[in-house]
Formats: sequence, structure tokens, C-alpha cells
Amino acid sequence: MSDQMHRIVLASRPEGAVSAENFRYESAPIPTPGDGEVLVKVHYMSLDPYMRGRMDDAKSYSAPVPVGGAMEGGAVGEVIASNSPLFEPGDFAFGMFGWVTHGCQPAKMMQKLNPSHGPITTALGVLGMPGFTGWHGLNTYGKPKAGETLVVAAATGPVGSMVGQVARLAGLRTVGIAGGAEKCALAVDKFGFDACLDHRAYDNATELRAALGDACPKGIDIYFENVGGKVLEAVIPLMNTFGRIPICGMISWYDAGALGANAATQSLTAPMLWRNILVKFLSVNGFIISNHYDEYPTFLAEIGPKIASGDIAYLEDIAEGLERAPAAFMSMLKGGNMGKQIVKVA
Amino acid sequence: MSDQMHRIVLASRPEGAVSAENFRYESAPIPTPGDGEVLVKVHYMSLDPYMRGRMDDAKSYSAPVPVGGAMEGGAVGEVIASNSPLFEPGDFAFGMFGWVTHGCQPAKMMQKLNPSHGPITTALGVLGMPGFTGWHGLNTYGKPKAGETLVVAAATGPVGSMVGQVARLAGLRTVGIAGGAEKCALAVDKFGFDACLDHRAYDNATELRAALGDACPKGIDIYFENVGGKVLEAVIPLMNTFGRIPICGMISWYDAGALGANAATQSLTAPMLWRNILVKFLSVNGFIISNHYDEYPTFLAEIGPKIASGDIAYLEDIAEGLERAPAAFMSMLKGGNMGKQIVKVA
Repeated sequence: MSDQMHRIVLASRPEGAVSAENFRYESAPIPTPGDGEVLVKVHYMSLDPYMRGRMDDAKSYSAPVPVGGAMEGGAVGEVIASNSPLFEPGDFAFGMFGWVTHGCQPAKMMQKLNPSHGPITTALGVLGMPGFTGWHGLNTYGKPKAGETLVVAAATGPVGSMVGQVARLAGLRTVGIAGGAEKCALAVDKFGFDACLDHRAYDNATELRAALGDACPKGIDIYFENVGGKVLEAVIPLMNTFGRIPICGMISWYDAGALGANAATQSLTAPMLWRNILVKFLSVNGFIISNHYDEYPTFLAEIGPKIASGDIAYLEDIAEGLERAPAAFMSMLKGGNMGKQIVKVA
Repeated sequence: MSDQMHRIVLASRPEGAVSAENFRYESAPIPTPGDGEVLVKVHYMSLDPYMRGRMDDAKSYSAPVPVGGAMEGGAVGEVIASNSPLFEPGDFAFGMFGWVTHGCQPAKMMQKLNPSHGPITTALGVLGMPGFTGWHGLNTYGKPKAGETLVVAAATGPVGSMVGQVARLAGLRTVGIAGGAEKCALAVDKFGFDACLDHRAYDNATELRAALGDACPKGIDIYFENVGGKVLEAVIPLMNTFGRIPICGMISWYDAGALGANAATQSLTAPMLWRNILVKFLSVNGFIISNHYDEYPTFLAEIGPKIASGDIAYLEDIAEGLERAPAAFMSMLKGGNMGKQIVKVA
């Protein structure tokens, strides 16, 4: 085997929208695992919206990717060398290897994959970080109750589709929002949403709000926030008293850079948001799933069998080749993916 | 006794700041209590910031005061006629009688006052709605932990002073914000805040933030929100991860009317707020105390003895005469009161 690996590094920080020039594909020697470390040949890597935040140097929950450093991200692959008793060659593992063909990490930072849980790609989506994010956020902060109404955007994505399905199984009316008629049909047909609105069909938040009002005749009890922007603006006045808003992301605002003073929004002001939280007694909670991996076994135990039984569906969108990761990532940020975006690396 | 009472009604809705023309002092016949009702001669009435919201016709948690209707509010007084076995003449009672010299209500909507709890005015402040608001909001949503840092504005008001004192007794560092040097000294000397900043001494949120940063060397874990505006803008970037923000009001924004698109704020945008909630895993909860009166006995049992023992201090600012209520109210909205604002009606 060659002693060279490939990786994609952050060539420069985006100003506004991400562009191809922000990435660089390069070669490097395959690392040799040190004591307690494991070398993995990556088969699939994950693309997720949070990665957009790591490209900025704004203060956030994680340090930014340094310019010249490999893009971060989760990946799954086969162990090809191990200096740890926890793994042996041939094992499959998940780790935060990044946008790379080969990853080398301490064994204790990796998870061995259980083949009974289905294809290894599921560890990146429905049974991985995004699915876990949806499950945890909905249950912990959303506190779903039968008969209530839930709204979630990116409804066919790996977070939104988990949120919608878990809520439906809990007896809620579920209303999705997605980009385009095809995704909306998928949300209803595959993921069981009671309705799904195409945000592209509405010129502004006021029009989207009117349609949402029709789709949510009893108002909105839970808005699972992953997009911000026009959807948030449409939703806020429809929230019921004692409503809950778990926040795991705000993809529509990521290209506004640090989401500072100039982030574009017309009538959604800070006082308007704050006032709605007050007068409707809303509970708004930001979270990142990496703080909650103590619950991951519970998640796997509950959702794993539902994947196997088909009670929870999932969809993956797989791009071929590490070199295509930047294009797939940029497309995903614009909603170009259909289901969980994955890159087949090997 | 005369068969005439007096009351202050909403003459017109404010456009921007409240003015004297928005009120009218008028006479009316003293009502005769119907079956189950009680007639009370009001001794003291309460003035509270929430009343500003009732003057607008924006959708809120309560219906607005109708134009021509008596201003709403809590008051205490002596029962002078009763058609209920629950009260007899000579009893003292609290009720939502409004800005009136005489109130008539169903007995079950009133509370008999316990003379052992101190002066009847305390039922309007430290042992009434404002004190209960501070206690409930801090404990339920603020979840104070010893060693943490709390910030609250209007620190010498009946909500802020309760919040600060309960937090101090729980072992937190407490930093108040108030208007003017005199209030800041009072916050420290009477209410035991570790520090208090005069928001008038800082031209903008950036300067206030720098001073707050010095006063909160370990960051802010709980921001008890009752003002919004410049203070919120200063505080948000100083919040620690896993911070909590109970919201009981936002007085600085009330005169912006419905707090809509034109509410004045420069760099505090909706995306900036939302992003901070996400990346710091904040928990933000709006509440109104009227939803939580099942906890009122617990509050009285805990705080009542601390008032008696002096462990919790309180301060009242008493204006004389119902006819002075509008001026006292307008002054309070600008921070002119020193402690809980009360009007002595009789």
C-alpha cells in the first residue's frame, strides 16, 4: 500500500458563502499509530451543517479549524493498524477523523461499530450524531406530549427526519418544512409527516406563516430549531403558550459569518423574539450533542431496534470520492442533499 | 359615607412613552356586592411595570385594559361589606381591584391577609407578586448553584432585590445593575449585592459590558431578565456555557409599544441572540407568576420568616393619593422609584 494519504484542509476562511477556494486537497504521509492509538482507513465520512461554523473564527462551542488544518468531521472505516488492545485490524470504527482518507486517533476516542446495527453508514446519520441530536433535543427540551403539534425544518435531513418520526410515534401532529416539492413528498411519504411545506414556495415569512397556520390549526407547541431565518420568523408568532424551542442549529444564518449585527433579517428583531419568549412562557434551549453522550447507549437501545423494524426510516445521499466533499458540502448548505449527506471515501 | 368612589381609567392608548393624557381620574358609584362578593376600601395599591403592557392592545398573556376601563392592578384594603362567609367587615384582603378607591370582587378571587406577615403593604411587594416573581423565576429557571454569578437589573426594585438576596443566600456572587449612584449604594448596603453598576454611567452596551466583565470575573451564569435593551446587549456575550436566563419582563422596551420591528436596538439582533443561546447552551424561559400560584404557600413559608428575621430586606416607595398614581407610574417606568412603588389610597 502507498504510504500517502489524502485530506482536505481549510485553505482560507469564507467571507459570506463558502466557495471552492476555501478548501485544498492535499497529500500527506500516512501516520504511524503511537502507543494506544489506532490507524483507520476511512470508508465513509459525514458532512454536517455544524462544520460551516468551524470554518469561521468566531467564538463558539468548539475551536475553529485552523487555516491549513484538515476539516473536522466524523467518519467510519476499517482498522488497519492498532497499538491498543481495544481494537484489532478488521474492526470497524467511528471517530472524528476529519475529511481524510486515513485517520489516526487514541483508541479511547473511537467507538467500535456493532455490525448488528445495520450498514456502517448509519453510524454517521440515523444512529450517529444527527439522529442522536434529534432524539435528545426533542425529548430533553421539546418534551413532546401526545396531541401537540411539532414543526421542524430540514424535515428530510437526518436531524429533522428523526425529530419528526420520534414525535409522530409519541402521538404528535408533525409538520415539516423542506426545500422543494420532492423533499416535501418524501417527508410525508417516507417519514410520515402529517404535512410538509416547501419554504421556497413562499416569498417571505408572512406568506410562510399563513401556510403554517393552516397546517397547524392548533398552533405550534414545539419548534425544533435547526435553520433560523425565515422559518423562525414565520413560526414565532404561531407558538402556543408554554411552547418549547430546542435549538441545535441555524443553518440559514451560517453564511452570515459570525451571525453578528449585519446578519440579514427584516422584521425578526431581538425585542420581538424576546417578547414572544416572555408573553408565551416559552422555553428555549440551545444544546450541542457532544455534551450528552452519556445518553448515547439509551438512544441506541431505543432507536436501533426501530431502524431494524422499519418503524424509523432513514435516507442517505452518498457522494463518491473525498475530492468531491467540498462540492457536496456547499450543495448541502443550500439544501441540495436528499437525506443524510455522506461521502464515500474508499 | 359617600356613595361615590374614585378610579383612574385608561383614557387613551400611549403612542411611545406614557403621558398624563393617557389617564383620566373619575368618579363612579360605589358598587354593591352581589352574592359571594366582597366590597373593599382600598388602602394601598401597587404600581408595577407589567401594567405598561396592558395599556397597549398588542396580543399578550392578558387582555389589554379597554379604553375607558379602570387601570388594572393589585391592591390591599379593608373589607367594608361582605356577601361571602369567607370574609367579614374589618378583614384585610388583597385583590386585583385596580386603580380604585373601592373594589368589589368575588371572595374566591381575593386573599385574606395574615397580620403576622407584617405591614399590609408587604402583600404588594416583597411578599406579593413581585417578590414571588423573583423567588420563583430564580429558583425554577435560574437554578442557582453556590459559587456561580448572577446578574439582575432594577436591583433595588421589588423583583431584583428579591432575586439578589435569594441568590446571595444560596451562595452566589450577585451583581446588580441600577440607575444612579444612590440606588447602587442601596443595592450593596441594604440588599447585599457584591457589586452594583450604574447603567447611566455607561454610554452604550459595549462600555457597560466592559464594566460587567470586571464585576463578573468568572462570567455570568444566571441573568435574571427584567429590562431587555442595553443591559441584555451587554450581558449576552458574557454568559457562561450552560447559563440560564429567566425572563419576567423587559421594561426598557415597553415604550416601544408592541415591541415590534421598530423597537430600538443597535447591535442586538435576533441572530446574535439566537446564536448565543445555541453556542453557550443557554436555557431561556419566559414566565408570568400568575401561572404559578400553587407555589405561593411555599414561597410565603420560606420567605415570610426571613422578612421577620431581617435576612431579607425590603424597601417601599409610597406615593400619597390615588390621583398621583399616573405620575408615580410614569416616574417608575423611568426608574424614579426607590424600592417597591406603592400608592397610599386611603
